[in-house]
Amino acid sequence: MAHGDLIERLIDALRCLPGVGPRTAQRMTWHLLERNRDAGRRLAAVLADAMDRVGHCRECRTLTEQDLCPVCSSPRRDRSRICVVENPADVARIEAGTDFRGVYFVLMGNLSPLDGIGPGDLGLDQLARRLGVGGVAELVLATGATAEGEATAHYLAEMAREHDVTATRIAQGVPLGGDLEFVDSGTLAHAFSGRREIVL
Amino acid sequence: MAHGDLIERLIDALRCLPGVGPRTAQRMTWHLLERNRDAGRRLAAVLADAMDRVGHCRECRTLTEQDLCPVCSSPRRDRSRICVVENPADVARIEAGTDFRGVYFVLMGNLSPLDGIGPGDLGLDQLARRLGVGGVAELVLATGATAEGEATAHYLAEMAREHDVTATRIAQGVPLGGDLEFVDSGTLAHAFSGRREIVL
Repeated sequence: MAHGDLIERLIDALRCLPGVGPRTAQRMTWHLLERNRDAGRRLAAVLADAMDRVGHCRECRTLTEQDLCPVCSSPRRDRSRICVVENPADVARIEAGTDFRGVYFVLMGNLSPLDGIGPGDLGLDQLARRLGVGGVAELVLATGATAEGEATAHYLAEMAREHDVTATRIAQGVPLGGDLEFVDSGTLAHAFSGRREIVL
Repeated sequence: MAHGDLIERLIDALRCLPGVGPRTAQRMTWHLLERNRDAGRRLAAVLADAMDRVGHCRECRTLTEQDLCPVCSSPRRDRSRICVVENPADVARIEAGTDFRGVYFVLMGNLSPLDGIGPGDLGLDQLARRLGVGGVAELVLATGATAEGEATAHYLAEMAREHDVTATRIAQGVPLGGDLEFVDSGTLAHAFSGRREIVL
Protein backbone atom coordinates (compact mmCIF):
# COMPACT_ATOMS: atom_id res chain seq x y z
CA MET A 1 0.00 0.00 0.00
CA ALA A 2 1.40 3.31 -1.07
CA HIS A 3 -0.43 5.67 1.25
CA GLY A 4 -1.86 5.79 4.74
CA ASP A 5 -5.13 4.48 6.01
CA LEU A 6 -6.96 7.78 6.24
CA ILE A 7 -6.51 8.45 2.51
CA GLU A 8 -7.76 4.93 1.70
CA ARG A 9 -10.77 5.52 3.93
CA LEU A 10 -11.57 8.80 2.17
CA ILE A 11 -11.36 7.11 -1.26
CA ASP A 12 -13.68 4.42 0.07
CA ALA A 13 -16.15 6.84 1.64
CA LEU A 14 -16.47 8.89 -1.57
CA ARG A 15 -17.82 5.80 -3.31
CA CYS A 16 -21.15 6.27 -1.55
CA LEU A 17 -21.80 9.01 -4.12
CA PRO A 18 -23.77 7.74 -7.13
CA GLY A 19 -21.65 7.22 -10.25
CA VAL A 20 -18.35 7.36 -8.33
CA GLY A 21 -16.15 4.29 -8.81
CA PRO A 22 -12.70 3.59 -7.36
CA ARG A 23 -10.78 5.64 -9.96
CA THR A 24 -13.03 8.69 -9.73
CA ALA A 25 -12.92 8.48 -5.92
CA GLN A 26 -9.12 8.43 -6.05
CA ARG A 27 -9.05 11.41 -8.40
CA MET A 28 -11.42 13.34 -6.13
CA THR A 29 -9.26 12.54 -3.10
CA TRP A 30 -6.02 13.76 -4.70
CA HIS A 31 -7.77 16.85 -6.00
CA LEU A 32 -9.13 17.84 -2.59
CA LEU A 33 -5.92 17.04 -0.71
CA GLU A 34 -3.56 18.68 -3.15
CA ARG A 35 -5.54 21.64 -4.33
CA ASN A 36 -8.69 22.40 -2.44
CA ARG A 37 -8.62 21.62 1.28
CA ASP A 38 -10.80 24.60 2.17
CA ALA A 39 -13.54 23.43 -0.20
CA GLY A 40 -13.16 19.92 1.22
CA ARG A 41 -13.61 21.24 4.76
CA ARG A 42 -16.67 23.25 3.70
CA LEU A 43 -18.16 20.18 2.00
CA ALA A 44 -17.59 18.05 5.10
CA ALA A 45 -19.34 20.62 7.30
CA VAL A 46 -22.38 21.21 5.10
CA LEU A 47 -22.70 17.47 4.41
CA ALA A 48 -22.76 16.60 8.12
CA ASP A 49 -25.25 19.39 8.71
CA ALA A 50 -27.56 18.32 5.88
CA MET A 51 -27.52 14.64 6.84
CA ASP A 52 -28.66 15.59 10.34
CA ARG A 53 -31.03 18.47 9.76
CA VAL A 54 -32.87 17.85 6.47
CA GLY A 55 -36.24 16.21 6.99
CA HIS A 56 -39.55 16.02 5.17
CA CYS A 57 -42.14 18.77 4.68
CA ARG A 58 -45.16 18.11 6.93
CA GLU A 59 -47.51 18.97 4.07
CA CYS A 60 -46.00 17.65 0.82
CA ARG A 61 -43.24 15.27 2.04
CA THR A 62 -40.46 16.90 0.00
CA LEU A 63 -36.99 17.20 1.54
CA THR A 64 -36.53 20.38 3.54
CA GLU A 65 -34.76 21.58 6.66
CA GLN A 66 -37.93 23.40 7.77
CA ASP A 67 -41.21 22.04 9.08
CA LEU A 68 -42.91 23.32 5.91
CA CYS A 69 -41.07 23.62 2.57
CA PRO A 70 -40.89 27.03 0.81
CA VAL A 71 -43.67 26.08 -1.63
CA CYS A 72 -46.09 24.85 1.04
CA SER A 73 -45.43 27.86 3.27
CA SER A 74 -45.84 30.40 0.46
CA PRO A 75 -49.12 32.40 0.62
CA ARG A 76 -48.96 32.93 -3.14
CA ARG A 77 -49.45 29.30 -4.24
CA ASP A 78 -52.80 27.97 -5.44
CA ARG A 79 -53.65 25.22 -2.95
CA SER A 80 -56.54 23.92 -5.06
CA ARG A 81 -54.11 22.30 -7.51
CA ILE A 82 -51.84 19.52 -6.27
CA CYS A 83 -49.15 18.11 -8.53
CA VAL A 84 -48.02 14.60 -7.56
CA VAL A 85 -44.38 13.79 -8.35
CA GLU A 86 -41.99 10.95 -7.56
CA ASN A 87 -39.20 12.90 -5.87
CA PRO A 88 -37.90 16.34 -4.82
CA ALA A 89 -35.82 16.67 -7.99
CA ASP A 90 -39.05 16.53 -10.02
CA VAL A 91 -40.37 19.47 -7.98
CA ALA A 92 -37.25 21.43 -8.90
CA ARG A 93 -37.68 20.50 -12.58
CA ILE A 94 -41.34 21.56 -12.70
CA GLU A 95 -40.58 24.78 -10.82
CA ALA A 96 -37.79 25.60 -13.27
CA GLY A 97 -39.54 24.51 -16.47
CA THR A 98 -43.25 25.32 -16.14
CA ASP A 99 -45.50 28.09 -14.82
CA PHE A 100 -47.33 25.77 -12.42
CA ARG A 101 -48.37 27.82 -9.38
CA GLY A 102 -50.12 25.12 -7.37
CA VAL A 103 -48.58 22.94 -4.65
CA TYR A 104 -46.96 19.51 -4.70
CA PHE A 105 -47.22 16.12 -3.15
CA VAL A 106 -43.96 14.16 -3.25
CA LEU A 107 -44.33 10.37 -3.19
CA MET A 108 -40.61 9.67 -2.60
CA GLY A 109 -41.03 6.66 -4.89
CA ASN A 110 -43.71 4.78 -6.80
CA LEU A 111 -46.09 2.00 -5.95
CA SER A 112 -44.19 -1.25 -6.36
CA PRO A 113 -45.91 -4.27 -4.77
CA LEU A 114 -43.01 -6.55 -5.72
CA ASP A 115 -40.61 -4.38 -3.69
CA GLY A 116 -43.15 -4.15 -0.89
CA ILE A 117 -43.87 -0.46 -1.50
CA GLY A 118 -47.58 0.12 -0.92
CA PRO A 119 -49.81 3.23 -0.65
CA GLY A 120 -48.88 3.76 2.99
CA ASP A 121 -45.17 4.01 2.19
CA LEU A 122 -45.90 6.81 -0.28
CA GLY A 123 -48.03 8.74 2.21
CA LEU A 124 -51.17 8.24 0.14
CA ASP A 125 -53.34 8.11 3.29
CA GLN A 126 -52.12 11.65 3.98
CA LEU A 127 -52.95 12.71 0.41
CA ALA A 128 -56.41 11.08 0.69
CA ARG A 129 -57.09 13.13 3.82
CA ARG A 130 -56.16 16.32 1.93
CA LEU A 131 -58.56 15.41 -0.86
CA GLY A 132 -61.23 14.53 1.72
CA VAL A 133 -61.03 17.93 3.41
CA GLY A 134 -62.20 19.51 0.14
CA GLY A 135 -61.05 22.59 -1.76
CA VAL A 136 -58.90 20.62 -4.22
CA ALA A 137 -59.98 21.10 -7.84
CA GLU A 138 -57.24 19.26 -9.74
CA LEU A 139 -54.75 16.52 -9.02
CA VAL A 140 -51.97 16.73 -11.66
CA LEU A 141 -50.31 13.31 -12.01
CA ALA A 142 -46.67 13.92 -12.96
CA THR A 143 -45.14 10.54 -12.14
CA GLY A 144 -42.82 9.15 -14.79
CA ALA A 145 -43.90 7.42 -18.01
CA THR A 146 -42.56 4.11 -16.68
CA ALA A 147 -44.59 1.02 -15.76
CA GLU A 148 -44.43 1.94 -12.05
CA GLY A 149 -45.17 5.61 -12.76
CA GLU A 150 -48.22 4.67 -14.86
CA ALA A 151 -49.51 2.22 -12.26
CA THR A 152 -49.12 4.83 -9.53
CA ALA A 153 -50.89 7.44 -11.67
CA HIS A 154 -53.74 5.00 -12.27
CA TYR A 155 -54.10 4.34 -8.54
CA LEU A 156 -54.09 8.08 -7.82
CA ALA A 157 -56.68 8.78 -10.54
CA GLU A 158 -59.07 6.31 -8.87
CA MET A 159 -58.42 7.92 -5.51
CA ALA A 160 -59.19 11.36 -7.02
CA ARG A 161 -62.46 10.07 -8.49
CA GLU A 162 -63.56 8.77 -5.10
CA HIS A 163 -63.17 12.29 -3.77
CA ASP A 164 -64.75 13.96 -6.83
CA VAL A 165 -61.46 15.62 -7.75
CA THR A 166 -60.40 15.99 -11.41
CA ALA A 167 -57.22 14.02 -12.14
CA THR A 168 -55.03 15.06 -15.08
CA ARG A 169 -51.95 13.35 -16.49
CA ILE A 170 -49.01 15.22 -18.04
CA ALA A 171 -48.83 14.64 -21.81
CA GLN A 172 -46.61 12.04 -23.41
CA GLY A 173 -45.28 12.54 -26.91
CA VAL A 174 -42.41 13.58 -29.12
CA PRO A 175 -39.93 15.74 -27.14
CA LEU A 176 -39.44 19.33 -28.32
CA GLY A 177 -36.90 19.39 -31.16
CA GLY A 178 -37.19 15.62 -31.44
CA ASP A 179 -36.89 14.17 -34.94
CA LEU A 180 -39.33 11.27 -35.43
CA GLU A 181 -36.33 9.20 -36.52
CA PHE A 182 -35.05 9.16 -32.94
CA VAL A 183 -38.35 8.59 -31.13
CA ASP A 184 -39.13 5.07 -29.91
CA SER A 185 -42.29 3.42 -31.21
CA GLY A 186 -44.05 3.49 -27.83
CA THR A 187 -43.62 7.25 -27.55
CA LEU A 188 -44.70 7.67 -31.18
CA ALA A 189 -47.87 5.63 -30.55
CA HIS A 190 -48.67 7.86 -27.55
CA ALA A 191 -47.98 11.01 -29.57
CA PHE A 192 -50.18 9.74 -32.39
CA SER A 193 -53.17 8.71 -30.28
CA GLY A 194 -52.86 11.94 -28.31
CA ARG A 195 -52.96 14.14 -31.45
CA ARG A 196 -54.92 17.38 -31.33
CA GLU A 197 -56.69 19.43 -33.94
CA ILE A 198 -54.78 22.48 -35.08
CA VAL A 199 -57.00 25.50 -34.59
CA LEU A 200 -56.00 28.26 -37.04
CA MET B 1 -36.98 27.95 -5.11
CA ALA B 2 -38.34 24.51 -4.41
CA HIS B 3 -36.18 23.49 -1.43
CA GLY B 4 -34.47 24.98 1.56
CA ASP B 5 -31.13 26.69 1.82
CA LEU B 6 -29.16 23.84 3.36
CA ILE B 7 -29.93 21.54 0.43
CA GLU B 8 -28.85 24.25 -2.02
CA ARG B 9 -25.63 24.71 -0.06
CA LEU B 10 -24.90 20.96 -0.18
CA ILE B 11 -25.48 20.88 -3.96
CA ASP B 12 -23.13 23.83 -4.25
CA ALA B 13 -20.45 22.36 -1.97
CA LEU B 14 -20.36 19.05 -3.88
CA ARG B 15 -19.27 20.95 -6.98
CA CYS B 16 -15.77 21.30 -5.50
CA LEU B 17 -15.29 17.66 -6.57
CA PRO B 18 -13.63 17.33 -9.98
CA GLY B 19 -16.04 16.41 -12.77
CA VAL B 20 -19.14 17.24 -10.73
CA GLY B 21 -21.44 19.79 -12.38
CA PRO B 22 -24.77 21.15 -11.11
CA ARG B 23 -26.89 18.19 -12.27
CA THR B 24 -24.55 15.55 -10.87
CA ALA B 25 -24.31 17.47 -7.59
CA GLN B 26 -28.10 17.55 -7.38
CA ARG B 27 -28.34 13.82 -8.06
CA MET B 28 -25.71 13.11 -5.38
CA THR B 29 -27.61 15.26 -2.89
CA TRP B 30 -30.96 13.49 -3.43
CA HIS B 31 -29.26 10.13 -3.30
CA LEU B 32 -27.57 10.81 0.04
CA LEU B 33 -30.62 12.45 1.62
CA GLU B 34 -33.16 9.91 0.45
CA ARG B 35 -31.23 6.70 0.60
CA ASN B 36 -27.91 6.85 2.33
CA ARG B 37 -27.64 9.26 5.25
CA ASP B 38 -25.32 7.00 7.20
CA ALA B 39 -22.84 6.88 4.34
CA GLY B 40 -23.16 10.65 3.99
CA ARG B 41 -22.34 11.11 7.69
CA ARG B 42 -19.35 8.77 7.40
CA LEU B 43 -18.10 10.66 4.33
CA ALA B 44 -18.43 13.99 6.15
CA ALA B 45 -16.44 12.71 9.12
CA VAL B 46 -13.59 11.09 7.17
CA LEU B 47 -13.42 14.07 4.80
CA ALA B 48 -13.05 16.56 7.65
CA ASP B 49 -10.44 14.31 9.24
CA ALA B 50 -8.43 13.89 6.04
CA MET B 51 -8.46 17.60 5.18
CA ASP B 52 -6.98 18.37 8.61
CA ARG B 53 -4.61 15.49 9.19
CA VAL B 54 -3.12 14.47 5.84
CA GLY B 55 0.25 16.07 5.22
CA HIS B 56 3.36 15.32 3.20
CA CYS B 57 5.94 12.59 3.78
CA ARG B 58 9.15 14.14 5.16
CA GLU B 59 11.22 11.99 2.82
CA CYS B 60 9.36 11.64 -0.49
CA ARG B 61 6.69 14.40 -0.27
CA THR B 62 3.76 12.08 -1.02
CA LEU B 63 0.47 12.63 0.81
CA THR B 64 0.29 10.77 4.11
CA GLU B 65 -1.14 11.21 7.58
CA GLN B 66 2.15 10.06 9.10
CA ASP B 67 5.51 11.78 9.29
CA LEU B 68 6.93 9.12 6.95
CA CYS B 69 4.79 7.33 4.35
CA PRO B 70 4.50 3.50 4.43
CA VAL B 71 7.04 3.11 1.57
CA CYS B 72 9.65 5.39 3.09
CA SER B 73 9.28 3.81 6.54
CA SER B 74 9.48 0.23 5.24
CA PRO B 75 12.78 -1.53 5.99
CA ARG B 76 12.27 -3.78 2.94
CA ARG B 77 12.57 -1.10 0.25
CA ASP B 78 15.76 -0.57 -1.76
CA ARG B 79 16.79 3.01 -0.93
CA SER B 80 19.43 3.09 -3.70
CA ARG B 81 16.73 3.41 -6.37
CA ILE B 82 14.53 6.50 -6.38
CA CYS B 83 11.60 6.74 -8.76
CA VAL B 84 10.49 10.33 -9.46
CA VAL B 85 6.78 10.76 -10.19
CA GLU B 86 4.41 13.68 -10.59
CA ASN B 87 1.84 12.84 -7.93
CA PRO B 88 0.74 10.34 -5.26
CA ALA B 89 -1.64 8.61 -7.69
CA ASP B 90 1.39 7.69 -9.83
CA VAL B 91 2.97 6.02 -6.80
CA ALA B 92 -0.19 3.92 -6.36
CA ARG B 93 -0.14 3.02 -10.07
CA ILE B 94 3.51 1.93 -10.04
CA GLU B 95 3.04 -0.01 -6.79
CA ALA B 96 0.04 -1.82 -8.29
CA GLY B 97 1.45 -2.41 -11.78
CA THR B 98 5.19 -3.05 -11.45
CA ASP B 99 7.62 -4.93 -9.23
CA PHE B 100 9.62 -1.79 -8.37
CA ARG B 101 10.99 -2.21 -4.83
CA GLY B 102 12.85 1.09 -4.52
CA VAL B 103 11.54 4.33 -3.03
CA TYR B 104 9.83 7.38 -4.52
CA PHE B 105 10.14 11.09 -4.80
CA VAL B 106 6.85 12.84 -5.51
CA LEU B 107 7.14 16.20 -7.26
CA MET B 108 3.48 17.19 -6.71
CA GLY B 109 3.58 18.76 -10.19
CA ASN B 110 6.01 19.46 -13.01
CA LEU B 111 8.41 22.25 -13.83
CA SER B 112 6.40 24.96 -15.54
CA PRO B 113 8.18 28.32 -15.73
CA LEU B 114 5.16 29.96 -17.37
CA ASP B 115 3.02 29.07 -14.33
CA GLY B 116 5.82 30.15 -12.01
CA ILE B 117 6.58 26.58 -10.88
CA GLY B 118 10.35 26.25 -10.46
CA PRO B 119 12.66 23.58 -8.97
CA GLY B 120 12.11 24.88 -5.43
CA ASP B 121 8.34 24.35 -5.67
CA LEU B 122 8.89 20.70 -6.56
CA GLY B 123 11.31 20.11 -3.67
CA LEU B 124 14.23 19.50 -6.04
CA ASP B 125 16.68 21.04 -3.55
CA GLN B 126 15.63 18.29 -1.14
CA LEU B 127 16.12 15.63 -3.86
CA ALA B 128 19.54 17.10 -4.72
CA ARG B 129 20.60 16.79 -1.06
CA ARG B 130 19.56 13.12 -1.10
CA LEU B 131 21.64 12.52 -4.23
CA GLY B 132 24.53 14.45 -2.63
CA VAL B 133 24.58 12.26 0.48
CA GLY B 134 25.46 9.30 -1.76
CA GLY B 135 24.20 5.73 -1.87
CA VAL B 136 21.80 6.34 -4.73
CA ALA B 137 22.52 4.18 -7.79
CA GLU B 138 19.57 4.98 -10.04
CA LEU B 139 17.08 7.80 -10.49
CA VAL B 140 14.08 6.43 -12.43
CA LEU B 141 12.32 9.30 -14.18
CA ALA B 142 8.62 8.41 -14.39
CA THR B 143 7.11 11.82 -15.11
CA GLY B 144 4.48 11.85 -17.86
CA ALA B 145 5.20 11.83 -21.60
CA THR B 146 3.92 15.40 -21.87
CA ALA B 147 5.94 18.51 -22.74
CA GLU B 148 6.18 19.46 -19.04
CA GLY B 149 6.93 15.88 -17.99
CA GLU B 150 9.73 15.63 -20.56
CA ALA B 151 11.22 18.99 -19.58
CA THR B 152 11.14 17.99 -15.92
CA ALA B 153 12.77 14.63 -16.73
CA HIS B 154 15.49 16.41 -18.69
CA TYR B 155 16.20 18.77 -15.76
CA LEU B 156 16.34 15.80 -13.36
CA ALA B 157 18.67 13.84 -15.67
CA GLU B 158 21.15 16.74 -15.59
CA MET B 159 20.86 16.92 -11.83
CA ALA B 160 21.58 13.17 -11.61
CA ARG B 161 24.65 13.51 -13.83
CA GLU B 162 26.06 16.25 -11.56
CA HIS B 163 25.88 13.77 -8.69
CA ASP B 164 27.20 10.82 -10.73
CA VAL B 165 23.87 9.00 -10.45
CA THR B 166 22.45 7.00 -13.37
CA ALA B 167 19.19 8.46 -14.64
CA THR B 168 16.75 6.21 -16.51
CA ARG B 169 13.52 7.13 -18.25
CA ILE B 170 10.48 4.82 -18.43
CA ALA B 171 9.94 3.56 -21.98
CA GLN B 172 7.55 5.15 -24.42
CA GLY B 173 5.89 3.09 -27.12
CA VAL B 174 2.85 1.20 -28.28
CA PRO B 175 0.64 0.27 -25.31
CA LEU B 176 0.14 -3.43 -24.60
CA GLY B 177 -2.63 -4.79 -26.83
CA GLY B 178 -2.50 -1.59 -28.87
CA ASP B 179 -3.17 -1.97 -32.57
CA LEU B 180 -0.85 0.30 -34.61
CA GLU B 181 -4.00 1.66 -36.26
CA PHE B 182 -4.97 3.41 -33.03
CA VAL B 183 -1.55 4.70 -32.00
CA ASP B 184 -0.76 8.36 -32.68
CA SER B 185 2.23 9.15 -34.89
CA GLY B 186 4.30 10.65 -32.05
CA THR B 187 4.00 7.46 -30.01
CA LEU B 188 4.75 5.36 -33.08
CA ALA B 189 7.90 7.40 -33.81
CA HIS B 190 9.06 6.83 -30.21
CA ALA B 191 8.28 3.12 -30.41
CA PHE B 192 10.18 2.88 -33.70
CA SER B 193 13.31 4.71 -32.61
CA GLY B 194 13.30 2.80 -29.32
CA ARG B 195 13.16 -0.58 -31.06
CA ARG B 196 15.25 -3.42 -29.63
CA GLU B 197 16.84 -6.47 -31.11
CA ILE B 198 14.94 -9.67 -30.50
CA VAL B 199 17.28 -12.13 -28.85
CA LEU B 200 16.15 -15.69 -29.58
